[in-house]
Amino acid sequence: MAKLIALYKHPENKEEFDNHYFNVHGPLTAKIPGLREMKVTKVTGSPMGGEGKYYLTCEMTYDNLEALQQGLRSAEGKASGKDLMGFAGNLVTLMIGEDA
Amino acid sequence: MAKLIALYKHPENKEEFDNHYFNVHGPLTAKIPGLREMKVTKVTGSPMGGEGKYYLTCEMTYDNLEALQQGLRSAEGKASGKDLMGFAGNLVTLMIGEDA
Repeated sequence: MAKLIALYKHPENKEEFDNHYFNVHGPLTAKIPGLREMKVTKVTGSPMGGEGKYYLTCEMTYDNLEALQQGLRSAEGKASGKDLMGFAGNLVTLMIGEDA
Repeated sequence: MAKLIALYKHPENKEEFDNHYFNVHGPLTAKIPGLREMKVTKVTGSPMGGEGKYYLTCEMTYDNLEALQQGLRSAEGKASGKDLMGFAGNLVTLMIGEDA
């Protein structure tokens, strides 16, 4: 399994972010061919107290690295990437990973 | 479900880090009461090329926030926390989250 991990910093306007994320970006991303699972986590805090370093995380699982890269290069992958850069280009960190 | 997410920055000595993480810290953490699942991901890169922002991530799942907090306050939780601060206190970011 290969994973694409997205970490989002706290947005200035959380309501606007949530609205776009859950109503537009999530559904666009869910269409990417080869995507097996998409898990969104809302960060609620830190064990040391205070808010967490990030606001939201998303883990997208593909069968393997090739499937992940094909997904990102597909029309649906490009649409999701374009949308991402438009609404959260300054907030997001993307990483590729695999189960240890 | 409640999750504790750990993000580790790239260590100076990856072999030493891996050795401690997988042979000492992981087994210590796995003993924490209430821990349902522990998923470790090795970051292998970024979709934009280059290495990822973090080196490794770990997601620890508990039934709920109370179980997570009880786990961290347990003797096993404190032992894991002490070990963590000793070998990776300057590398780790901890966050609490829940499924969106």
